[in-house]
Amino acid sequence: MADLSNIKALCFDVFGTVVDWRGTIIREGAEWSRDYGLDVDWAAFADAWRAGYDPAMARVRSGERPWIKLDVLHRENLLGVLDAFAITSLGEADIDHINRVWHRLDPWPDAVAGLARLKTRYILATLSNGNVAIMVNMARNAGLPWDAILGAEVAGAYKPEPKAYLSAADMLDVEATECMMVAAHNYDLIASSKHGFRTAFVNRPLEFGFGKAETPMTDAGFDIVAEDFGDLADRLGC
Amino acid sequence: MADLSNIKALCFDVFGTVVDWRGTIIREGAEWSRDYGLDVDWAAFADAWRAGYDPAMARVRSGERPWIKLDVLHRENLLGVLDAFAITSLGEADIDHINRVWHRLDPWPDAVAGLARLKTRYILATLSNGNVAIMVNMARNAGLPWDAILGAEVAGAYKPEPKAYLSAADMLDVEATECMMVAAHNYDLIASSKHGFRTAFVNRPLEFGFGKAETPMTDAGFDIVAEDFGDLADRLGC
Repeated sequence: MADLSNIKALCFDVFGTVVDWRGTIIREGAEWSRDYGLDVDWAAFADAWRAGYDPAMARVRSGERPWIKLDVLHRENLLGVLDAFAITSLGEADIDHINRVWHRLDPWPDAVAGLARLKTRYILATLSNGNVAIMVNMARNAGLPWDAILGAEVAGAYKPEPKAYLSAADMLDVEATECMMVAAHNYDLIASSKHGFRTAFVNRPLEFGFGKAETPMTDAGFDIVAEDFGDLADRLGC
Repeated sequence: MADLSNIKALCFDVFGTVVDWRGTIIREGAEWSRDYGLDVDWAAFADAWRAGYDPAMARVRSGERPWIKLDVLHRENLLGVLDAFAITSLGEADIDHINRVWHRLDPWPDAVAGLARLKTRYILATLSNGNVAIMVNMARNAGLPWDAILGAEVAGAYKPEPKAYLSAADMLDVEATECMMVAAHNYDLIASSKHGFRTAFVNRPLEFGFGKAETPMTDAGFDIVAEDFGDLADRLGC
């Protein structure tokens, strides 16, 4: 393994890496079914909602539309998914409540304890495409001990744009080579590594549902491939 | 007292309000005297350094020079102060170490416990002219439980520019009227209130040394005038 002794900051992807977006939508979906009188396959609903995520950001990355925060993109996509699922009975406040499920996502079972260990030695920052309010409300709800909320909104650029990564290192006053990106997604780690970040792939076998895991690219040269945040803390000597 | 029941976020000035910049420089100055063989009146040194703070930011606010983070302004001013005090023996690493005292400032004795109480009910964000790295390193060193590091660097504007306040409310996804600015300085509270923020003046009688306290303007209509963060927590029902 490469020498990782100069790492000062860990920058985290959040959706899927720290929190379980799909499981939380399915869990809350049962409440929405009851409260709003709906009969919906919430796993399919979650997958459809998530499918709109990257195309929506791509229009911002390309310059087709100006910078806009993820809460707004999520809500635009939610309206399309509600339409696709023929859900027509919800009021604006109900739709807002569902949209803010991204502010209430549950952490993976190992996340809080693992982050607490990692925090003893490293600066912990979010480096998510989620906007600041999503990250702040989620952290308060789930007990995630971030030192700083960085990422797309603070940088004014969605990952994998270089600015998203480089502004985080700049704001933390560390070199890119002193940052480790932690993510369950190959694209994010590969993009960060182009700018000097060290990389830790964390396996999240259930993110997209059973049997659909994203697996680490074997030729990508990630510095660490970890089973969970406890394993990551072990590997980093915390 | 005005109805403060709709407040969701507390935004904090930090230098002087949460941490004791002058006392910390004097305390560390004793170490610098010993380590670097200096004979300096560190209280006078601290005051001289602080005196350059606002003029340096004013040149950025006016557009005379482009955006630049406070660490850099601090270091430029430090060089001038070292010159004024005829300190010529320090190397670059020594100067960097002294400059980063702003990353190591000690909290006022009531700050950590008061913030812990306030955090149970409110989002706590920094809204300082200090850059992100100062705030992050200070928080880790002093145990300050921020939910978000906002303020000048994230906004790209130094207080009292409107953008510094408005971007904090926008990023937290709350109305300006749902934010309370907490500061030991009249100008900051008055500026924030112009944009709808509620205001809490906290007395810090020793910030500038004994007998030089900034006192709350009686006709400014601050929502709260508090003795310390414990008193502020009492007033806010935490």
